[in-house]
Amino acid sequence: MTNIKFDISALKKFVNENEINEIKPMLNTARDELLNGNGVENEMRQWMTLPTDYDKEEFNRIKQAAKKIQSDSKILVVIGIGGSYLGAKMALDFLHDNFYESADSNKYPKVIFAGNSISGSYVNDLIKLIGDKDFSVNVISKSGTTTEPSIAFRIFRQLLINKYGKDEANQRIYVTTDAKNGALRQEVNENGYESFIIPNGIGGRYSVLSAVGLLPIAASGANIDNLMQGAANGQEHYMNAELEDNGALQYAAYRNILYRKGYTNEILENYEPNLRFLAEWWKQLAGETEGKDNKGIYPSSANFSTDLHSLGQYIQQGMRNLMETVVRIDEPKSDFKIPVTGNNNDGIQYLEGKSMNDVNNKAFQSVIIAHTNGGVPNMVVNLKNQSEYSLGELIYFFEFAIAVSGYLNGINPFNQPGVEDYKQNMFALLGKPGYEELKKKIEK
Amino acid sequence: MTNIKFDISALKKFVNENEINEIKPMLNTARDELLNGNGVENEMRQWMTLPTDYDKEEFNRIKQAAKKIQSDSKILVVIGIGGSYLGAKMALDFLHDNFYESADSNKYPKVIFAGNSISGSYVNDLIKLIGDKDFSVNVISKSGTTTEPSIAFRIFRQLLINKYGKDEANQRIYVTTDAKNGALRQEVNENGYESFIIPNGIGGRYSVLSAVGLLPIAASGANIDNLMQGAANGQEHYMNAELEDNGALQYAAYRNILYRKGYTNEILENYEPNLRFLAEWWKQLAGETEGKDNKGIYPSSANFSTDLHSLGQYIQQGMRNLMETVVRIDEPKSDFKIPVTGNNNDGIQYLEGKSMNDVNNKAFQSVIIAHTNGGVPNMVVNLKNQSEYSLGELIYFFEFAIAVSGYLNGINPFNQPGVEDYKQNMFALLGKPGYEELKKKIEK
Repeated sequence: MTNIKFDISALKKFVNENEINEIKPMLNTARDELLNGNGVENEMRQWMTLPTDYDKEEFNRIKQAAKKIQSDSKILVVIGIGGSYLGAKMALDFLHDNFYESADSNKYPKVIFAGNSISGSYVNDLIKLIGDKDFSVNVISKSGTTTEPSIAFRIFRQLLINKYGKDEANQRIYVTTDAKNGALRQEVNENGYESFIIPNGIGGRYSVLSAVGLLPIAASGANIDNLMQGAANGQEHYMNAELEDNGALQYAAYRNILYRKGYTNEILENYEPNLRFLAEWWKQLAGETEGKDNKGIYPSSANFSTDLHSLGQYIQQGMRNLMETVVRIDEPKSDFKIPVTGNNNDGIQYLEGKSMNDVNNKAFQSVIIAHTNGGVPNMVVNLKNQSEYSLGELIYFFEFAIAVSGYLNGINPFNQPGVEDYKQNMFALLGKPGYEELKKKIEK
Repeated sequence: MTNIKFDISALKKFVNENEINEIKPMLNTARDELLNGNGVENEMRQWMTLPTDYDKEEFNRIKQAAKKIQSDSKILVVIGIGGSYLGAKMALDFLHDNFYESADSNKYPKVIFAGNSISGSYVNDLIKLIGDKDFSVNVISKSGTTTEPSIAFRIFRQLLINKYGKDEANQRIYVTTDAKNGALRQEVNENGYESFIIPNGIGGRYSVLSAVGLLPIAASGANIDNLMQGAANGQEHYMNAELEDNGALQYAAYRNILYRKGYTNEILENYEPNLRFLAEWWKQLAGETEGKDNKGIYPSSANFSTDLHSLGQYIQQGMRNLMETVVRIDEPKSDFKIPVTGNNNDGIQYLEGKSMNDVNNKAFQSVIIAHTNGGVPNMVVNLKNQSEYSLGELIYFFEFAIAVSGYLNGINPFNQPGVEDYKQNMFALLGKPGYEELKKKIEK
């Protein structure tokens, strides 16, 4: 039993029945590369068994740390960028109230992210938001030397020390980093911070189910036991099920079939506003995994029905290189009945007393029909609900699918050789010792 | 004098000098279609002179309404979708604190949007957020029969009546709609709501400088006089300046030159987190204007340096059909000096005492170099600051550029024929009277 039904019934016009059989040998080879570790970069597959094979002692310490943060902090500042930010942000939005960051009084601390930009204004605004409220810091970085989080950690550690003194500040800093090496591990050793581990075999974009994501998620009051159980259920299913019963393998196959026909842009969509960051997390997962060697599906996103009134025109009638993947929630968190007014001024009397979720669902069905008629292939990920358990499975679904998809497209799914290019230039322009030659070259 | 400098110096590798001269006759023709009204759909150009030619009496009523809302409401629920939402949301984020929606005590009301999705959970969460706080409603819809805002208006009007009784509720409802026709105009006539006008000659995506955007912006405490003055300055400049001195015309020209070479995806980028919704507004403006007849640049977005750690890999090394347009702020709202710690554990001692904004700016320069080296053409919109005046000019810059760009690409920039398709299906599936035949057809 899985909480996901992957639906390709809207692909009939775009993919013939024979195509899935004909790509299946390659798909199986790609899957075997992943499962058996005979593909490139095979040491980076530790995320694959993480939902069942994780450090239980650390997991309990994460829950204890979350409890301490809940007891002594109104705000948890989470410092991280890329994979050290997007997974937790996605999960917090997915699991909580649409306004959990705005609510006046939360039972649990607000989790606010920092060190994910270099904006001075953002830092000042966050310091103002913290004001005289109690807060703690969770800094997340494998190397401890990534520029954005390093700057933010200097700032918010100083703020903690100014407010609480060094001893108590040390009790309010939680570090998630490499087990042995790096700048933050050294800080842990010197200051006795509580610390958690980013395992070597897990890249940033596959790290949400490690301490990277788990501590912020737990601190927010969500149930990480259920999250891991859902992911374990996903692991059991997607690692073992055959293609016919394996939505993740199907998703990997069909998006590659479509890509090879010229559908080179994929839009991940939803019908619930608090799924917005699911797409941001997925964009890193898909884009950073597959966008290399001058190829790969370009990942973008839309939030419906909102963006039907902005991007809808383009999707319906623009360039025909788009495919859409919809993540739809079968049982949304709550519902609302459309009020009865007794008049039809607004033209919606025919909806009186109906459930908004039913209307939302009809909008979803209508869009599938309209967009496929317009020439855009659609795939649907039906997810049972917005529980921690379902989210765990959804995370595993996408991680597994995208890794297979990468091998299937003949690239290395676990490296990211292009992300260093601008950093080298930046170090040179900023005058970092050791980059003098590059600086001269750039200035010429 | 303008507050925008449009910079194409990073295009050298991608566009030869002769190309701009060779497209210039077509560009001038497109500009003249817009200026002289000899293009298609010419009655929809009223936005072009709106910054100087607007109803001053209404403008003053908007300011008075904003004052009343500030005096009696902690929350203003703005009900609108598409162009009746994105412009105001973009402006609010751009002009205010990064956490203006989360801050505990605001001098001005929080502006929260509704009626921009069909999520029942969102409605319940918003009602919980309002709680026992005083609030008002601004409903924005030209026809008054768009499904999402119609549902939301029923709900939040009822909430107002329950809380305040019908008479005071009527004083807390502000309607922005057609001057004479439509469901909301009828409601205004029946209930005496304060009302404002969406002019006939202005489409939703060009409406932010009408009452559609102005009331929410003014209610939030921003200065709409300065906003309009900046837009008027933009109007004076971009309507009159020749290509050599006209950034908007240049932007229209170069993005079309690049599009015809195969750069069919454009990414709008920024380096300040509160510019995130600038791209959402721009996506509607560009995508809905140009995405038709199976052509048009696909608009997407990224927020830097954040997304350099997610989409950066794809942009650097993925498919080479991308172009980037960066909106950069010359003088950000505030700055922060990187703290001195006396050690180099984190590898950033060389940045101690430096301004974050300077580092951010070096990141921007480094990315331009890296991405153009990687094969992605880059254009830069340098904006002086994040004032209302600068925002007014920026809005006009993009509106003018995209309208010219649409004519230049040989499409109708002011219609949106594709947005009705899914709505027809939806009416049929929901059982709206009059759609029985279509319903039968779909069910077959």
